Amino acid sequence: MVDRIAFVGTGRMGANMARRLRDCGFAVTAVHDARAVAAEELAREIGAAAPGSLAAVTAAADVIFTVVSDDAAQLGVFAEAGDSLLTGARGKVFVNCATISPATHVEVERRCRAAGAASLEGCMASSIPQARNGTLYLMCAGALADFERVRPILEKLSCALRYVGPTGRAAQVKALVNMVMNINTAGLAEGLGLGAALGLDLGILREVFSQTGAASQVLKTDGEDMQNREHSCFFSAAHAAKDSGIACALAREAGLSLPLARATQEQFEKMVRLGLGQLDKSGVAELTFRERHGLD
Amino acid sequence: MVDRIAFVGTGRMGANMARRLRDCGFAVTAVHDARAVAAEELAREIGAAAPGSLAAVTAAADVIFTVVSDDAAQLGVFAEAGDSLLTGARGKVFVNCATISPATHVEVERRCRAAGAASLEGCMASSIPQARNGTLYLMCAGALADFERVRPILEKLSCALRYVGPTGRAAQVKALVNMVMNINTAGLAEGLGLGAALGLDLGILREVFSQTGAASQVLKTDGEDMQNREHSCFFSAAHAAKDSGIACALAREAGLSLPLARATQEQFEKMVRLGLGQLDKSGVAELTFRERHGLD
Repeated sequence: MVDRIAFVGTGRMGANMARRLRDCGFAVTAVHDARAVAAEELAREIGAAAPGSLAAVTAAADVIFTVVSDDAAQLGVFAEAGDSLLTGARGKVFVNCATISPATHVEVERRCRAAGAASLEGCMASSIPQARNGTLYLMCAGALADFERVRPILEKLSCALRYVGPTGRAAQVKALVNMVMNINTAGLAEGLGLGAALGLDLGILREVFSQTGAASQVLKTDGEDMQNREHSCFFSAAHAAKDSGIACALAREAGLSLPLARATQEQFEKMVRLGLGQLDKSGVAELTFRERHGLD
Repeated sequence: MVDRIAFVGTGRMGANMARRLRDCGFAVTAVHDARAVAAEELAREIGAAAPGSLAAVTAAADVIFTVVSDDAAQLGVFAEAGDSLLTGARGKVFVNCATISPATHVEVERRCRAAGAASLEGCMASSIPQARNGTLYLMCAGALADFERVRPILEKLSCALRYVGPTGRAAQVKALVNMVMNINTAGLAEGLGLGAALGLDLGILREVFSQTGAASQVLKTDGEDMQNREHSCFFSAAHAAKDSGIACALAREAGLSLPLARATQEQFEKMVRLGLGQLDKSGVAELTFRERHGLD
């Protein structure tokens, strides 16, 4: 019997993963979102149902991907009372792809086990285009047997599928990836902002960066966007603030002082306070270029 | 007539540049260092003189490279009184390769012009092996005619030779390169240090970093060294502190607040205070790994 698949959370990542699995021939039977209209549009597009309740989503599928926005949303869809994915969940497998805290993944696993279901972390270290074409960098954690159970599905989403250990591990790795990525992003914005203030040609400066120890992946993905103030959102500043915050919380628990991670978290939180949280993370350059300073 | 070439400052960068030009068939006639024994050893090795005075260095050469350690040393070898490279300097070309402040390059240029000599910035964004095999990333600034005059020599030192404008420009670009490189380095050390504290496999973590938005040039050059505490010096923490300091001073003058650059400068200055300034910049991981914390 072929697995029926459902998605909870149909933002751009979740929607693209659903499209991708549909294109690969899987039966995507149901989609659901807190914004019902988003789920209904996607459902029409890919020929799925858009049930109004979470219990109906679980009933409609064998493997349920959740791609929600934060810890509260993740715990909310697995509520222990009221409408919940846990209703009738015995034997189902949940793959939870939000970037949330390791502790929330552990709690969700506990709730799923109590309901007779399995839960996996499926942490994605990639962005929206990779979700659409099945080339996510996908780190999974949980029980190995559950991972093997859904591996054929996951392999269609990922060009680099990794099992990294028990539940919580993938979220830790993801938090570290995003912490370092955010530091490199905020640092690049400072370099380009200072270069602009000095009157340097930013095209040449980026070329020099690319040939030297200043080179980085975010230079490739965000450097030109910072120069051109092109901040269409692939990975929002609000998400960057959240992810750096998860990493800084882990550091505090571990008794480590990480001044760059903290300074980076503060920069992205400043963007949120200034109403810039929905810009792409490249928008941190709005804080470091003089003519943009004060956001005039 | 073939140019005679001299070097002032025979640390590992200067010595390797001298070896390289000698290997390319140039006449390296004189070398000089504040540590006379270092100059004498190099002189014996490459068949040059090691005159005791700076004036004698100028007399022995047409093109003089200076590769000294800091602003004070740079101004010292171009002293306006006492023993100085400026003595008998009419018609000579100085190529100043230290990482120093833009303002010092401008002042040196003023003094050279007053003595009838030319000065160029030759800022290197590479390290010791590249000096030896002629593959430096070399950014030059100064009068274009002077640059063209010595270009055949510079081309033997560099696989990427760039003229970036009037004097001071190359030092600005170099300061920005190193500022961003240092941020990425200090940030990587935080990511790996937190990963170690969480009990993650750092080999896998580095591999994940390399495939995601956390990838960077310093991950390639310094990541494994951070893990293994292998901090043999290619680019010292003390130099990193100095270069980040130059960039932060430029930012202050420009009225910019750059919190990551400042936090990075503080980390490398902390290393210097703790007596770790002569470790490679990768040694910043000594501050971010818990079992190393407190430097036990």
